[in-house]
Amino acid sequence: MYDFTFYNPTRVVFGRGVFPKLADELAKGGVSRVLLLYGGGSIHKTGVYEQVVGALNSHDIVFFECAGVKANPVVSKAREAVEAIKANKLDAIVAIGGGSVIDSAKGIAAGSLYDGDMWDFYARKAKVEKALPIYAVVTVSATASEMNYTSVMTNEELGHKVGLSNELLYPRCTLIDPSVQFSVSERQTMDGGIDAICHVLETYFDGAKGLEIQKEYAEGLVRSIIRLMPILRAHPDDYDARAQFAWAAVNALNGTTWAGHPTRGEFSSHAMGHTLSAKYDSIHGETLSAIMPAWMKYACREDMPTFARFAERVFGTNESSEEERALAGIECLKGFFASLGAPVALGDMGIPKADLPELAAHVTRNGPIGSLKKLEMVDVLKIFESAY
Amino acid sequence: MYDFTFYNPTRVVFGRGVFPKLADELAKGGVSRVLLLYGGGSIHKTGVYEQVVGALNSHDIVFFECAGVKANPVVSKAREAVEAIKANKLDAIVAIGGGSVIDSAKGIAAGSLYDGDMWDFYARKAKVEKALPIYAVVTVSATASEMNYTSVMTNEELGHKVGLSNELLYPRCTLIDPSVQFSVSERQTMDGGIDAICHVLETYFDGAKGLEIQKEYAEGLVRSIIRLMPILRAHPDDYDARAQFAWAAVNALNGTTWAGHPTRGEFSSHAMGHTLSAKYDSIHGETLSAIMPAWMKYACREDMPTFARFAERVFGTNESSEEERALAGIECLKGFFASLGAPVALGDMGIPKADLPELAAHVTRNGPIGSLKKLEMVDVLKIFESAY
Repeated sequence: MYDFTFYNPTRVVFGRGVFPKLADELAKGGVSRVLLLYGGGSIHKTGVYEQVVGALNSHDIVFFECAGVKANPVVSKAREAVEAIKANKLDAIVAIGGGSVIDSAKGIAAGSLYDGDMWDFYARKAKVEKALPIYAVVTVSATASEMNYTSVMTNEELGHKVGLSNELLYPRCTLIDPSVQFSVSERQTMDGGIDAICHVLETYFDGAKGLEIQKEYAEGLVRSIIRLMPILRAHPDDYDARAQFAWAAVNALNGTTWAGHPTRGEFSSHAMGHTLSAKYDSIHGETLSAIMPAWMKYACREDMPTFARFAERVFGTNESSEEERALAGIECLKGFFASLGAPVALGDMGIPKADLPELAAHVTRNGPIGSLKKLEMVDVLKIFESAY
Repeated sequence: MYDFTFYNPTRVVFGRGVFPKLADELAKGGVSRVLLLYGGGSIHKTGVYEQVVGALNSHDIVFFECAGVKANPVVSKAREAVEAIKANKLDAIVAIGGGSVIDSAKGIAAGSLYDGDMWDFYARKAKVEKALPIYAVVTVSATASEMNYTSVMTNEELGHKVGLSNELLYPRCTLIDPSVQFSVSERQTMDGGIDAICHVLETYFDGAKGLEIQKEYAEGLVRSIIRLMPILRAHPDDYDARAQFAWAAVNALNGTTWAGHPTRGEFSSHAMGHTLSAKYDSIHGETLSAIMPAWMKYACREDMPTFARFAERVFGTNESSEEERALAGIECLKGFFASLGAPVALGDMGIPKADLPELAAHVTRNGPIGSLKKLEMVDVLKIFESAY
């Protein structure tokens, strides 16, 4: 096992009807003036907005609002929120939404206590030294942003989508009420499941040896999510399935599976997907369903025993050779993604084939990516072609 | 899934040679005067004492010492430490050891900022309102006290061994160097494995339904520990096995497996074992190896599907009926404990048979125990007799 530090101080308050507890958490944290950050209007339809505002009012907590955060969140919107926080001297952010809103809140939390432009953090021109506290009210489970310290943001002018990680960006408190997710669309629910599975696998397949416990956790999570997705497809209002998936998605990227790994995951597939999202605003989960199996096929020779083990333990494949089992497992995963109605070919996502070389160049603009297998531009291009 | 709160802010610094990092962690936390709390002399033999003191000296951190904490730690020793902290105005505790020392540190941390007697917390006469920060330097892995908020202490005058849980008692930072555990005795290592398995199972078998992810985690942990113990018996200096067990033991009782459970575990077997330890100073792990299988046999009819699932997934039992599989699994577990050289009968531990009724009365002195199956005095007596 490699040396590591494990630290995750986010308090998770989980269950039916927990959102009004936000007010107590804010009061406990000495917070009295907040920015409500959210996306479109769905929180008005689901009643989440009323629950949150009611709780704030009952505790006389002053709030300002910033709405309109979109999927693949953009820095221009985040800058707008920073302005509002600075102008109104707010002391915390309440992020109501899923990964896009919570990722945005992290950049905004750091940007609000910084004199320069917040993109500096993402461009690695400045390091986060302080950040406002974040309270997350989760309305869609997928990214685990509600219990980790990573933010992914798109700079529309530069056409870059990049990540930022810093311990100061852990939400102080996260409230998860699975019942408000009954109305999350089938497509978004399935994409969330794909995202969570890929989070687990990008750590699982990083080539690290001797991490038996972490491998057991990862396999258990993937088996659970594979079992849950068809239930949620058929019964979007199954509380227990929503709850189990919400907790699985959090565990998929809150540190549980990566302790003792030399990297915090491989994340080549995420990097390739981010380039597609930056250029075509592609849905995050759909970039992964197309790319992840192609990456696995390309990289599996670097660690065939682990790919074979995954196939056996998750899909019960029993072909006679290790390689056959490994490849069969990859096909099973691809088949599972397809069974959820997700695209498993970039060609089906409206991405022009002629763009692939330019996309591969963009992915590797700062040098090769990947840890299991180092990927140069030419490797990324081959994966894109195989995924096409 | 039941409603729950998950919160575990302990920072874990894990790896070979990490103990000197303690000084940085203390400095980061603004700590300048500490109490070093430890047990017998083993930390002098292993060089851990020198590593810690060297680090403190290099950062000009003032320290006082309190040595002699024993297994099944007693409140009289803890009171002594509280006196030293109050007299010398110390601002943190550095607990060097395993569960006994870290459990003691928790009581001491609360007692040092309290005007009354620290046993009040354990006797439920007072609630912990504040506590000094605790830094744990782990020399033996078993109890997970290094990453949870529970302390178990014995009051020798009253003959009680009881637990205390409070969020303020989480260690602020825990340093784990598996290589210093090469010299932990075979007996203590095996007892640690038994303790960790029982921690997992007392949550797993609490009767809660629909916790697929938590069940997957629990099964993975138990399979891992069962695989690791024989390796550690044969090769006590296998770094990777020590590291994996150290992390497994932490995960067995740091909240990972109990999220979403209605209780924080069943813990009837622990309660019965604590009575034996309070009366005969019995080794904690050995009370469990004798009692846990007997409890399982007594309680399994309350949730046969889970006991059968455990048997199948951990021991691969394939008897035709659910009940047969469940019972076979219990026998496998008992056989595994015996294979580690642990006692699986109270009669082998020198406990007089005539004492059993009195012991059962002590276990249930505050009323029935247990959540899967409520145990009255007569039930506890039957389990003791079956374990005899």
